[in-house]
Amino acid sequence: MNVELSRQISELRESVARLHGELTRYGLVAWTAGNVSARVPGHDLMVIKPSGVDYDDLSADNMVLCDLDGMPVEGELSPSSDTAAHAYVYRAMPEVGGVVHTHSTYATAWAARGESIPCHLTAQADEFGGEIPVGPFALIGGDDIGKGIVSTLTGHRSPAVLMRNHGVFTIGRTARAAVKAAVMCEDVARTAHLTRALGQPVPMAQADIDALYDRYQNVYGQRSSPPANS
Amino acid sequence: MNVELSRQISELRESVARLHGELTRYGLVAWTAGNVSARVPGHDLMVIKPSGVDYDDLSADNMVLCDLDGMPVEGELSPSSDTAAHAYVYRAMPEVGGVVHTHSTYATAWAARGESIPCHLTAQADEFGGEIPVGPFALIGGDDIGKGIVSTLTGHRSPAVLMRNHGVFTIGRTARAAVKAAVMCEDVARTAHLTRALGQPVPMAQADIDALYDRYQNVYGQRSSPPANS
Amino acid sequence: MNVELSRQISELRESVARLHGELTRYGLVAWTAGNVSARVPGHDLMVIKPSGVDYDDLSADNMVLCDLDGMPVEGELSPSSDTAAHAYVYRAMPEVGGVVHTHSTYATAWAARGESIPCHLTAQADEFGGEIPVGPFALIGGDDIGKGIVSTLTGHRSPAVLMRNHGVFTIGRTARAAVKAAVMCEDVARTAHLTRALGQPVPMAQADIDALYDRYQNVYGQRSSPPANS
Amino acid sequence: MNVELSRQISELRESVARLHGELTRYGLVAWTAGNVSARVPGHDLMVIKPSGVDYDDLSADNMVLCDLDGMPVEGELSPSSDTAAHAYVYRAMPEVGGVVHTHSTYATAWAARGESIPCHLTAQADEFGGEIPVGPFALIGGDDIGKGIVSTLTGHRSPAVLMRNHGVFTIGRTARAAVKAAVMCEDVARTAHLTRALGQPVPMAQADIDALYDRYQNVYGQRSSPPANS
Repeated sequence: MNVELSRQISELRESVARLHGELTRYGLVAWTAGNVSARVPGHDLMVIKPSGVDYDDLSADNMVLCDLDGMPVEGELSPSSDTAAHAYVYRAMPEVGGVVHTHSTYATAWAARGESIPCHLTAQADEFGGEIPVGPFALIGGDDIGKGIVSTLTGHRSPAVLMRNHGVFTIGRTARAAVKAAVMCEDVARTAHLTRALGQPVPMAQADIDALYDRYQNVYGQRSSPPANS
Repeated sequence: MNVELSRQISELRESVARLHGELTRYGLVAWTAGNVSARVPGHDLMVIKPSGVDYDDLSADNMVLCDLDGMPVEGELSPSSDTAAHAYVYRAMPEVGGVVHTHSTYATAWAARGESIPCHLTAQADEFGGEIPVGPFALIGGDDIGKGIVSTLTGHRSPAVLMRNHGVFTIGRTARAAVKAAVMCEDVARTAHLTRALGQPVPMAQADIDALYDRYQNVYGQRSSPPANS
Repeated sequence: MNVELSRQISELRESVARLHGELTRYGLVAWTAGNVSARVPGHDLMVIKPSGVDYDDLSADNMVLCDLDGMPVEGELSPSSDTAAHAYVYRAMPEVGGVVHTHSTYATAWAARGESIPCHLTAQADEFGGEIPVGPFALIGGDDIGKGIVSTLTGHRSPAVLMRNHGVFTIGRTARAAVKAAVMCEDVARTAHLTRALGQPVPMAQADIDALYDRYQNVYGQRSSPPANS
Repeated sequence: MNVELSRQISELRESVARLHGELTRYGLVAWTAGNVSARVPGHDLMVIKPSGVDYDDLSADNMVLCDLDGMPVEGELSPSSDTAAHAYVYRAMPEVGGVVHTHSTYATAWAARGESIPCHLTAQADEFGGEIPVGPFALIGGDDIGKGIVSTLTGHRSPAVLMRNHGVFTIGRTARAAVKAAVMCEDVARTAHLTRALGQPVPMAQADIDALYDRYQNVYGQRSSPPANS
């Protein structure tokens, strides 16, 4: 392994370990049930959480380096039991640099009812460009979850999918963008839940949703920084 | 820039940066979606959060100094994407010294339904003097949000407006007062939601609401301190 | 003031300041809207939170010593705007050593509907001995709130009253016991809310409620410690 | 007492004290109302929380060592008032190494309605293998609670039981496994509540639940670590 690749992997191990702290900060995960991964750009490799390890105990050192079939290529820890799904997404969607999985409460309740989250909030239009869609029910252990994610999100504006009776998967150009999508998915799922609990939202015009999405993807954030979703 | 103005701006940078900590402490914001600003008293200037920067990374140094058209006058960071709305409020309402924007969950659910929050709590009578009103739907990017805030709050007791399908804007004589209004707005929105979820509140007499509002604005807090809303 | 009384007051200042930390820890209060007081045993004196001061800034030094008419007898800070209600309780109920006031969310929602919380949980039977009652609506500024608390709680097992359209007052033999009652009041109000949100609770037999209450008041906790409620 | 047993007990005191921190971290307990115990493997002994002691004040030293009739065999503190229930479980279920009791809010609301939590989530299938059952109402003070736990959980996949009008008891091969079950029980109770609040969940096939349960019990986590539930 050359020096540049080693450095790249070291940085991603550090960043993926640290990003799990956002999942706990926003209360998106209980016990060990949620994970973040990042593609190693330009290589058929990814860095992902080890299986069943406490969030408090995560560090750059115990992140697992896998190939894009989900097989560990370094170290002794088993990768997350969701590794096959992450790997499938990286194989099928070359523009994706990060994947996140959670069972965040409000979003998962929509997933359990098999309902997509309709767009009635400017914050949802900004980040998701419209509804957050439902993906199929799929068993863990093969490529079914990965296929369900990819078939739902391909050609869709939303970086988040609600996998039926299961939970949330989000994608992004970077792991940080995917984590942001997971945080915002739960935030809008919660607001949408509360809205509906006492009545019906006022509809938003499709043209307004389009205008908000376009602006947010192109204007928000610092010009000198990576793009909005990073 | 003279010494006195420099000192004033330094203090406001410090205070505005720190006040964002109240937004996270009370769970009013997710990721970077909320902002605080303060007018520089006696000058056509304001201090506001930079766009898309994490709350953990805010400091006096990265706050952005803008004129009251929302144009940065110092530094290299872009100001919050909501700067135009803040600036419009300062231009139109000279008594306002601070503005806050959040998408706090319960308040935003009322906003998504286009429903004002009726006053059935002494705490709401104290701080808001009655209902918390709904403002119009408005797209970001021009003066529409600012106009909606100003037209709704002018002549209204409430320092908070629920912008339809969007979120909350609050005003105050100081940034701290506007932050307090944002905290109390979510608090009463949550209690009002839960009240309605299982039935109907007992109505309060208008005379009682008036008496509570009058007393709170004039008596609460320390005599030697700034007025109640500060 | 003799040495023994000075020592007693110092300890109560310390303990009352610190007990406010339990109100924030359990999320019972927003901004400065909640307060704890303690009677100085054997004297017509009480120690209470200053008005409008942040919870982060409370210390033994800024607690306010008042007589039982609610008038400050030391220092320059104004006491809590709820001091008259606390003082009335101490004058009317000699067995009470501590009083707490909050607007905790779920309990206040029951108060806004004017509904007492029926007893369907062993934890409520333990601490409250049955339902948590509703008190009258009363304006701040005289003895009306104090009278409402005392008339509702006199001869009642519950150490908590839901003041209509307002919030919670709790009493205890010590300030710590009153804080515990405030914490448990919100806890059972929340569980009772969620229970009712999806259906009806299974009724509990009065004899079971009585047995639980009797046991908890007499057996729970450490024998060598103060009684259960302390 | 021999050296090996002393060491074993010391480690369990440390671990049981520390595991209470997970109950507070996940908000499963208010004030002192929840407890963890561990069996001393190979001996008729258990380690359990002292009664009425604050979670902040727990340490290895104040944990109480009891025999399996629930009688303290060391030290001066009284054990948890729920000790009899823990002890009954250890006597009746030799495979159980840890027991946890909480009144966690959402799970207790299901218990107050006397409703088991049906399985509509992959996370529930993983950990509980199907529904989380309701146990009988039982008064504290004898063996009734213990009998209710054992009769409900014997031969059941679920490590958690919702004791009617009371709260949650969970079991595990270790205290840590029982704590995990308590955390996941509240997590699925909350998601199931929110799911039902706005409609009905999509049913899951029994074969899918069986496949998920089987896989999670046998594959999840690190091969070199204790089994999944540890």
